[in-house]
Amino acid sequence: MIRFYNGPVLSLREGFELKNKEVWVKEGKICYTGKTPEELPEFEREINLEGKLLMPGFKNCHTHSPMSAFRSYADGLELGDWLFGKILPLEEKLTPQNIYTFTKLSILEYLSSGVTSIFDMYFHLDGFVSACTECGMRASICGAITQDAPDYSRVLREYEKYNNVSELISYNLGFHAEYTANRELMEYISELSLSFRAPVFTHMSETKSEVEGCRERHGLTPPALFEGLGLFDHGGGVFHGVWLSDEDMDILKKQNVSVVSCPCSNLKLRSGIAPLARLKQKGVRICLGTDGPASNNALDIFREMYLASLLSDLNQKGIPVIEAEDVLLAATKNGAELVFPDSDCIAVGKRADLVLIDMNRPSMQPEHNIVKNLVYSGSKDCVCMTMIDGKILYENGEFFIGESPQEIYERAKHELKEITQ
Amino acid sequence: MIRFYNGPVLSLREGFELKNKEVWVKEGKICYTGKTPEELPEFEREINLEGKLLMPGFKNCHTHSPMSAFRSYADGLELGDWLFGKILPLEEKLTPQNIYTFTKLSILEYLSSGVTSIFDMYFHLDGFVSACTECGMRASICGAITQDAPDYSRVLREYEKYNNVSELISYNLGFHAEYTANRELMEYISELSLSFRAPVFTHMSETKSEVEGCRERHGLTPPALFEGLGLFDHGGGVFHGVWLSDEDMDILKKQNVSVVSCPCSNLKLRSGIAPLARLKQKGVRICLGTDGPASNNALDIFREMYLASLLSDLNQKGIPVIEAEDVLLAATKNGAELVFPDSDCIAVGKRADLVLIDMNRPSMQPEHNIVKNLVYSGSKDCVCMTMIDGKILYENGEFFIGESPQEIYERAKHELKEITQ
Repeated sequence: MIRFYNGPVLSLREGFELKNKEVWVKEGKICYTGKTPEELPEFEREINLEGKLLMPGFKNCHTHSPMSAFRSYADGLELGDWLFGKILPLEEKLTPQNIYTFTKLSILEYLSSGVTSIFDMYFHLDGFVSACTECGMRASICGAITQDAPDYSRVLREYEKYNNVSELISYNLGFHAEYTANRELMEYISELSLSFRAPVFTHMSETKSEVEGCRERHGLTPPALFEGLGLFDHGGGVFHGVWLSDEDMDILKKQNVSVVSCPCSNLKLRSGIAPLARLKQKGVRICLGTDGPASNNALDIFREMYLASLLSDLNQKGIPVIEAEDVLLAATKNGAELVFPDSDCIAVGKRADLVLIDMNRPSMQPEHNIVKNLVYSGSKDCVCMTMIDGKILYENGEFFIGESPQEIYERAKHELKEITQ
Repeated sequence: MIRFYNGPVLSLREGFELKNKEVWVKEGKICYTGKTPEELPEFEREINLEGKLLMPGFKNCHTHSPMSAFRSYADGLELGDWLFGKILPLEEKLTPQNIYTFTKLSILEYLSSGVTSIFDMYFHLDGFVSACTECGMRASICGAITQDAPDYSRVLREYEKYNNVSELISYNLGFHAEYTANRELMEYISELSLSFRAPVFTHMSETKSEVEGCRERHGLTPPALFEGLGLFDHGGGVFHGVWLSDEDMDILKKQNVSVVSCPCSNLKLRSGIAPLARLKQKGVRICLGTDGPASNNALDIFREMYLASLLSDLNQKGIPVIEAEDVLLAATKNGAELVFPDSDCIAVGKRADLVLIDMNRPSMQPEHNIVKNLVYSGSKDCVCMTMIDGKILYENGEFFIGESPQEIYERAKHELKEITQ
């Protein structure tokens, strides 16, 4: 059992109040919160919270972890040129072993950023799952199938396999995007959603040309198309959601579809700026993701929080702005509600996916408002511990994932040479 | 004498090539670079660069350091409401002692971000200078006078005093901004510039309404007004430069005036996005600054570099984009050329203002392109050492500035209580 004591806890159970209380962790879960009892049990480890803040870990709700291989490999391009011209030719060469190695590289970065759960979309899933389970990373996988797949029933097999592989791993129905899916594929996913009563996830309305293309192909915007196909009858989420009309947002709200915004990637690939303030006004749940490290180029949830808050109300005068509190929830609780049940807050019975924030880093001082400090001036160097499922995987700059960073870097370097030569 | 050896050096002398070479530091300066000689002298300290990159420190060319007092105190407002409604009433209460304490708080953050020089604009300069010289921070001060000052000759006294107070400190002619300066004040600064053959610095064209107001008051845009007044006859720099016409940029180029861009603050205060790509095309020197920590809300040069690169070419199709290399120079060499002579690169005789970047942080891997990694995925947690004038002031998360961070935080907390109650 691990004990946190003697300092502030931001439980996010309701509101944003900091409370000084004990938090005990046992077998992956939070087993006690509250006052210090007169008699204490034996602890494996006792962590004094003096000068530190305990809070739920961050949820990175859209990423392509193995793309760390391509960080700083192709930049300054728009999405289409970047993806089809530079990235896809290399992706074709990736082996499951590569996926395993580059996922581990990304896991190091998630942990250093306080991210305790990732919602990932890629391929060669066995390599991805091995990396996550070996390291102790919590991950949900989103189906990434395109119309070019020889056999659509792969989604069904993946759904059954990866929902039963580890406590840390789950799998959600999904497909890559409307522009890479024919009607047959989308109808198949819709049928699976109906039969499992399961939500569906996909890239959607990332670029203006994607939305225009969808109108040409189907006479509808992507949300209207997906609604008609019944894809969102059990809710779900869309990645990006940059180019949304008011009617699109009404559909998302009505169908209980969340928007996972990726502000850094959307700017870097010049896709645009998501209408977060308007989405908030419409009552659509907003989550945050980094997108893959080749289009960002980091996996830094603090950077996403900051950009989300800065960009949200640009050119949207008259609409209530996104507050620091909204952004913090987008990066934590909302993500948990999307695909990581039982890790939304600090309460008994919840998963012990926790981070410690060092309040003695200069950017966290003075303490006028802790939530604003986290969102507006927080950064990776403030994360002094990341715990997933009750295990400390990162502490004071060091990683405890069964393999040293240097080993991972060396292997990544070696494997990259084989891909790029 | 301190020795750096056995690893890559990004000297920025010319180009961006990494070279494995020795760098030795003595009495505040770089005294040797090159091959390892057969016989080595005695060193006070030898630093193995394995897994680390040695490069010139970052130059933060626009800040108001003591405003760390107001971080997370007032957010979500536009510049005018924020400044006049919230900040000025508190600023009036600040004492020189407060300036001293809050400058130290900011110095901690500069050091953790690899910033070795700051170009600061504020008041109660004795407090600021004491904080910098005690800590070992290199700083240039920019005159911040407004038309409300009882005696304009204060600028002359400051110029003479603070250019002779310490090797670490310099003072540059300047005034707060056109919208707080009458013609008499601007003419006085212009005369001083002429008599000292010295450049002039000021806030300029930060908001649309500021430029519109200047047109109403003077019938000219700020650059045209300043040119006519002879303010830029010896060059200088403007802070922000968000709302610039093509003609404005031509004036800046012709008059050898640099633009110090503050992308985070400009977005946070909804001032706008500076036309960096167009400025680059026009050949205007671009530097970077954080602006004050109350309008940013961090002092993180990595965040500025990232945002500068992402925002620069938004909505500016057809103009060559700002590359990672441009942004790195803006944050280093260009700033040195502006006001910090002899710290522009790693070469014999230059000031030993250096940082070590930990290439073993996950966001710095793989190493396809080190400059891109620094600009697109670098962050404060990659800075493992900051040296100013040959002294190591920050290393592996610890500060060596003569006072502990905790002492500074406690004093700041105590002094804040007195101001805000």
